[in-house]
Parts: sequence; C-alpha cells; structure tokens
Amino acid sequence: MRRQILNNPEDLVDEALEGLALTHPSTIAYDREAGIVKRAHPARDKVGLVSGGGSGHEPLHAGFVGAGMLDVAVPGAVFASPTALQVHEGTIAADSGRGVVQIVKNYTGDVLNFRIAGELADDDAVRTEVVLVDDDLATDTADGGPGRRGTAAVLAVEKICGASAEAGAELGEVAELGRRVARNARTLSLALSAGTHPGETEPAFELGADEVELGVGIHGERGTGRVPFADADALTELLVEPLVAELGPARGSSVIAIVNGLGGTCPLELSVAARAVHRSLAGRGIAVARSLVGSYVTSLDMHGMSVTLLPADLDLLPLWDAPVRTPALTW
Amino acid sequence: MRRQILNNPEDLVDEALEGLALTHPSTIAYDREAGIVKRAHPARDKVGLVSGGGSGHEPLHAGFVGAGMLDVAVPGAVFASPTALQVHEGTIAADSGRGVVQIVKNYTGDVLNFRIAGELADDDAVRTEVVLVDDDLATDTADGGPGRRGTAAVLAVEKICGASAEAGAELGEVAELGRRVARNARTLSLALSAGTHPGETEPAFELGADEVELGVGIHGERGTGRVPFADADALTELLVEPLVAELGPARGSSVIAIVNGLGGTCPLELSVAARAVHRSLAGRGIAVARSLVGSYVTSLDMHGMSVTLLPADLDLLPLWDAPVRTPALTW
Repeated sequence: MRRQILNNPEDLVDEALEGLALTHPSTIAYDREAGIVKRAHPARDKVGLVSGGGSGHEPLHAGFVGAGMLDVAVPGAVFASPTALQVHEGTIAADSGRGVVQIVKNYTGDVLNFRIAGELADDDAVRTEVVLVDDDLATDTADGGPGRRGTAAVLAVEKICGASAEAGAELGEVAELGRRVARNARTLSLALSAGTHPGETEPAFELGADEVELGVGIHGERGTGRVPFADADALTELLVEPLVAELGPARGSSVIAIVNGLGGTCPLELSVAARAVHRSLAGRGIAVARSLVGSYVTSLDMHGMSVTLLPADLDLLPLWDAPVRTPALTW
Repeated sequence: MRRQILNNPEDLVDEALEGLALTHPSTIAYDREAGIVKRAHPARDKVGLVSGGGSGHEPLHAGFVGAGMLDVAVPGAVFASPTALQVHEGTIAADSGRGVVQIVKNYTGDVLNFRIAGELADDDAVRTEVVLVDDDLATDTADGGPGRRGTAAVLAVEKICGASAEAGAELGEVAELGRRVARNARTLSLALSAGTHPGETEPAFELGADEVELGVGIHGERGTGRVPFADADALTELLVEPLVAELGPARGSSVIAIVNGLGGTCPLELSVAARAVHRSLAGRGIAVARSLVGSYVTSLDMHGMSVTLLPADLDLLPLWDAPVRTPALTW
C-alpha cells in the first residue's frame, strides 16, 4: 500500500506548481490562469523554447525552466496532456519575437495539442517549429503504430536546444539541432515496482519477487517483457547492451549518458548503476564524455531506472556544458 | 517487499562512491584507500571543512563536497560511523594550513571517532574545531541522554560554514558561525513508511494504513509517537507548529526553511509540502527568506519528510547565497 503527502488529488498539480514557484521565486513564476510556468525574468530577443506534457514526471518539465533551458513549461494533469489552449498560451509566452521551438514527447495527445497550438500561434504570427522526441527503444516496432515514446532524452534536447537558443541561434537552427539529438538518442527503462497514481493506494501493475519489468514507459505502461531479478550490474547491462546495439557507437567514440531514476530510486542505487554504465561502456571501448545521474524524468514513485545514450558529437559538448540555471538543473 | 538496485551489499558504499566520482570527475575524487571523498581540485589557504557519518543519507555528505561547501566527506558503512582513522585521513586531507572544522552530527559513534581523529590531528600539528549538529526537536528531552540527534540542519551548517571558509574566515570564526547555526536551527520529521536496509526486503518498522510516525530519525529509529494519517497541509503543520513553538520567531521575522525528502518522497509531494510550509509560516507573519526543497538528507528509501527552520539572521543570507558547486547542490 502506498499513501501520499497530498491534499485533494484534483488540486495536486496546481498546489505543487505553486510550491515550486514559492521555492524558486527568482527563477520561475507560475501563471495559474494560463496554466503555465515561465521564467521569472523572461528572455529577450532569442528563440523561445516551450515544452510540456502530463505531470507525474517531475522535475520534468517545470523544473527545467530558466536561463539556458526552457522559457515555458506547460503541465497537464497527472499523465494527461495539457490542453491545446494551454500550449497556445505557453507558446505565445515563450516568444520574444524570434519564434518558438516546441519540444514534444511522442504521445498522441501531446502531439495533437501542440500541433493545434502551433496553428493557433501561426494565426498570431508567431512562428513555431516542432521537435518530436521519440527515444524509447522499447517501443521501436515496425507495426505502423504511434512510434517510439518520448522519455528521458527530452532532457538532453531541452538542455542542448536551450544552450543553442541562448547563444543566439535562429529558429530553424535550434529546431534542427533538437531533431538531431532526438534522432540520435535512445533510452531504455526497467522497473522493480510500478508507481501509484495520486489518491490511489495500489501501483499500476504488480511484479513477482523475482521479476523485473523491462522496457517500461513513464506512464505506468507495462514493458516489453519480464525478466528475472538480478544484481545492479546485470540489470544495467540489460539496458546498455540493446542501446549500444541500436546506436552502434564505434570503439574509441564517446557518449553523453543519462542514468535516470524513475521516482522511487535512491541515490545509492543510481550511483551504483552509474558505475555499471561507465564500466560496461569502457569494456566496449566507449568513453562517457559527460553524464547526468539523478531522478529527472520520473513516473510518480516508480522504483526503477532508465539509461539514455547520445553520441557525443563534438559540437554538442559545448552546448551541454553551457551554463544553466533552473530549479532542477544548474551548472 | 522492497528490492534494491544493488550488487553485493558489502560493496554498496564503495561502488556508489566510485559511481559518484565517475559522474562528477571535475568536482570530486574518491580515495578508496583512505575511505574519503575530496575535492578534485583541493582548495588552498583556507580553513578546511570535513564532515561524515554513516551512509544511507545520500546525497549527504559526499554530495556536498566542492567549492563553497565541504573539502572532504568521510562515509561509513550504511548507518555506521566511519572509523577514527578514516576521519583522521579526512581531517588531514582537508587541511591547507589554516586548520579544519569538523562538522559532526550528534551520534555517539560519530562524536567519539571525530574526537579521536581530532586528537590524532593535533599530534600532526593540524588544528581542529568541532561543530556538533543536534537539531532534531523530536529528541529534545531532559533525560541526560545523548541529547538531540543531528539531522537535516547539518546541510545548513555545511553551506554556511563552507561559504565563510571560502571567504577567508579564520578557524575559530568558521566554527563559531557553525555552532550558532546549529544552536538556532531545529528539524522535525515524519514518515509514512520506513526505509529498507540494503540486502533486506522488509522495512525497519511497519505502520498501519491510518498511522504516521512523527519524530522519526534518519537511521530507521522509531519516532516519538504515531499520529493519524492526514492530508499534506495537516501533516506539514505537525512539523511546523512545534518548530515555531520552540524557536519562537517573531511576527515580521524571516527564516531559512529546508523541506527535505527522506528518500522515497516524490518531487510533487515535496512541492505540495513546501507550499504548506510557506502558507503556514505566512499565516504567522513569518516570511521564508530562502528555502531549499528536495531530498538532501535521506534515510535510504524512507517515505517521509523533514522540515528545518533557521532564523534568517542578516549576516547568514549572503553566506547562504554564496556560490556553491557540489554534486548535489549548485548555485
């Protein structure tokens, strides 16, 4: 049984955004009426960046609003797309005259509502470009369905596009860069236990003591299959091996790696997994040029992790390293 | 049942520190032989700061090593004090000629081993001062026992002393400042469920569906009593009310507030609690000058939170705001 530190579940997202804004008053502001989180000090004369989607994945996206990353985040209810009108408000708020890149995780509702918002922005003479993030290797099937889900690589897209926009790049340039990152990054996830929806007491699915769900999504979606429980090195390898097989990085090349907790994973566990990722890649002659380890793209209190790999193209590293000041990511 | 992303439990701390150092190679280095974590680029000509204690509270303390905060962290096994020899190594490593402040949470083993290490350092002609952190209001009894436990206020002590040392203050000055912060700060915690020791599958204690453990410690210690489960605002008030009663901040005054997750608490929950802390204090005419919200001083995967309040004396705010660059805290 899982309980939550929660008032009325219907007020959860609103109250949490109010709390986040009270915690970071010099970085973000919450516009309750518009249903968006924006920078406390809006940027001028740069390409705007807006992202959003269902809540329940915190700190994504509101935690990445600030200098060097997003201009605006548009949160929906837990695991539900924001409305097209909300996204429209967010898109307009993100514009400072040079157009707006919409960073959209590949889910039907998000894709639809961002598209409508883009058309509405067009009516307002605000130019938009969409970067679709579809990095989840577990959903890489040729069945003509909705395509791969968008998961933790969205963080890399937001960081790298954010740095590029801050440096003065043009709309098409920022969007093309984001598309390249999305195209080249892949993520794979596993869970030891599912998350529990706010106001409920039972997790989205149950696992046996010897089972691990491989290929889970971030909305309580079941994975591609169940595999036997194993130690941290073996579990990590279940993620690294298919990612390397898919991306095919050459010996001697290097990657950006994100080792991401899904909400209920402790820092000790993530550090052990990070060690395993480094060692596994080193054993293949692949260096980790940069890494980010923490719970950044979560699924409520799901106990599990994802690994994201992105080839560390030389032009990406300065953008990755560029300063960022947001509630959840600062360097 | 709780499982962990873990290899051999006996290797957990060592592997996690290796992983942390691989993740932050430009900030920290792990000296396995000495059993300490130090800055990748040791500071020169400043008062050194060393802290440490049992593991299982990550990111404390290794996550706070870096410019503007600790010079060295000395981790013990999970919930066990580091040895006096380890602390001695850490104390010597933290010295750059101007002495070392040892920041010690008030637990018998830690107090003893830091004291022995201080005596050993004295033999090496390294001056030391101890700042004892004993902020846990739940253990504020007059029974002549070990006194109040040290919990999340240690983070404020490390931040403020770190800034002071970085700014060039002398040994006695940094220590006196730390003692003042420790003396003035109080913390109170509650848990909705206990943490599970690595390698075990059952939590340290069990709670009924309607029970909340009030006044828990960070080592799975039981609290001062069980109270009925309630909504987030009411649970938060259970922490804020006694803290305010103890510290007695005047109407019109302001505080530094830390809303800390105990390991298994989601960002949404912490943001809702942060909102409640702000509102509860505002209702008493007390402003939150600065706040920090996140899982910083944890107890494995315990699901719960602590609130720390510290009167925001005017000389503390510039030290709180001073730049810091560590794995877990950067601004």
